[in-house]
Amino acid sequence: MPVELKGNILVTGANRGLGLELVKQLAETTGQEAHIYACSREPEGSRTEALRQLTTRHPGKITIIKLDVADEESISAAVQAVQDQIGDAGLNILINNAGIRKPALSGALSATKKNDMMEVYETNVVGPFTIAKVGLFSAEPRFPDASIHFSAIINISTAISSIEKCPETFSAAQMYPYRISKAALNMLTRCQAEDFKTHNIVVTAIHPGWVQTEMGGENAPLTTVDSVLGMLSVISSLSNKDRGMLLDWQGNTIPW
Amino acid sequence: MPVELKGNILVTGANRGLGLELVKQLAETTGQEAHIYACSREPEGSRTEALRQLTTRHPGKITIIKLDVADEESISAAVQAVQDQIGDAGLNILINNAGIRKPALSGALSATKKNDMMEVYETNVVGPFTIAKVGLFSAEPRFPDASIHFSAIINISTAISSIEKCPETFSAAQMYPYRISKAALNMLTRCQAEDFKTHNIVVTAIHPGWVQTEMGGENAPLTTVDSVLGMLSVISSLSNKDRGMLLDWQGNTIPW
Repeated sequence: MPVELKGNILVTGANRGLGLELVKQLAETTGQEAHIYACSREPEGSRTEALRQLTTRHPGKITIIKLDVADEESISAAVQAVQDQIGDAGLNILINNAGIRKPALSGALSATKKNDMMEVYETNVVGPFTIAKVGLFSAEPRFPDASIHFSAIINISTAISSIEKCPETFSAAQMYPYRISKAALNMLTRCQAEDFKTHNIVVTAIHPGWVQTEMGGENAPLTTVDSVLGMLSVISSLSNKDRGMLLDWQGNTIPW
Repeated sequence: MPVELKGNILVTGANRGLGLELVKQLAETTGQEAHIYACSREPEGSRTEALRQLTTRHPGKITIIKLDVADEESISAAVQAVQDQIGDAGLNILINNAGIRKPALSGALSATKKNDMMEVYETNVVGPFTIAKVGLFSAEPRFPDASIHFSAIINISTAISSIEKCPETFSAAQMYPYRISKAALNMLTRCQAEDFKTHNIVVTAIHPGWVQTEMGGENAPLTTVDSVLGMLSVISSLSNKDRGMLLDWQGNTIPW
């Protein structure tokens, strides 16, 4: 039974695609007890225009935070900016949605440069790693607020992160840097799920489906609206059994 | 039924620990049809003394190659040096053994820096990625020699790379950067296993056991001798069913 999401919710990569839709639906469906921190690399840039409009439509509900997850100093500054606003209340839900895919096309071995491998890992894995580290451990643990139903870290992963299923998916989407980074993110998820049990934080990876975004392309079968509807329903229903699991947007478990 | 390993065999991180023992046993057990390329970051340095002595004891059997797997130019130079010697024959067995673990102690979240995450990934994942890419694709495919029983890429992984088993192993060995990099290496292994099927190259990840090396520490239950005996037996017995699998040094499958 889904519950209404409350408290301080932070979404990375919130200026477009799934991140933007997550902020939109969260703004529309949560009550006064929720506030959304929507992170973007360039809050003032043209690529954040849609997020700024959304913020204007929901006065006092959304705060845009400047954040580049590939930059440690940017992460520290963003955490500080959030902390200045929420004080001791802490974050309740962190959605690590920011992610990149390089090279732009197939990601075949021969087309992939060393820097593609390093940059994709830096953003997709080390970003969420550092946010959790700085956010949770630089001062007092920032999760959870006992008055809230639960606290969670959601790492946006992908079905093609499944090592088990790789033989079925490889020929259609080689994407070495991307799928390797997401398998690594799954391990990070499971480690954090163990690590943060004592803080009562649920850590779960979610596959949003193959979605019509810049990354997914226009041939994708799923709209961002339906993907986010599904993911928010899954997030609202998370319980202990979901700690350290990889679920799809419908709540089905994907094997490692 | 194990077969005798033949052809051109390359071992990275060959100056100590498992790599050195791999070269030693390969030199002792293979016939005239095998030649071993033993890679070390500093062929002239004091930490490669034992490998140089081994090379002297087996005249004409071992060639020491300078290789830093974290350095693309070093990889290119090493591949060229091997190619100058073997010409069109190509490599038959590549053992990606070079690996690092940082930070030195537990690898807990709070003790791990961003650079630890990046450097461990660079050596443990992007190194094997780049070697396969440069070695196989910069010119003609370098594997396999049809006169040899089979060709293989062996990625040295670890049991704690298992995402599935993480809840059982996490508290005893958090090691975020290391275990995340090895989960990523497992995905690389499985991708390459698919990718290189058409070249008839078997790609398999092997867990060497918990071994008495600098990395494993003196409390480890397994000697390097027994670990390598086991791994070479596994490598000699590899068949199609082992493509893209994670096996331990006794040949047992470890779940992802």
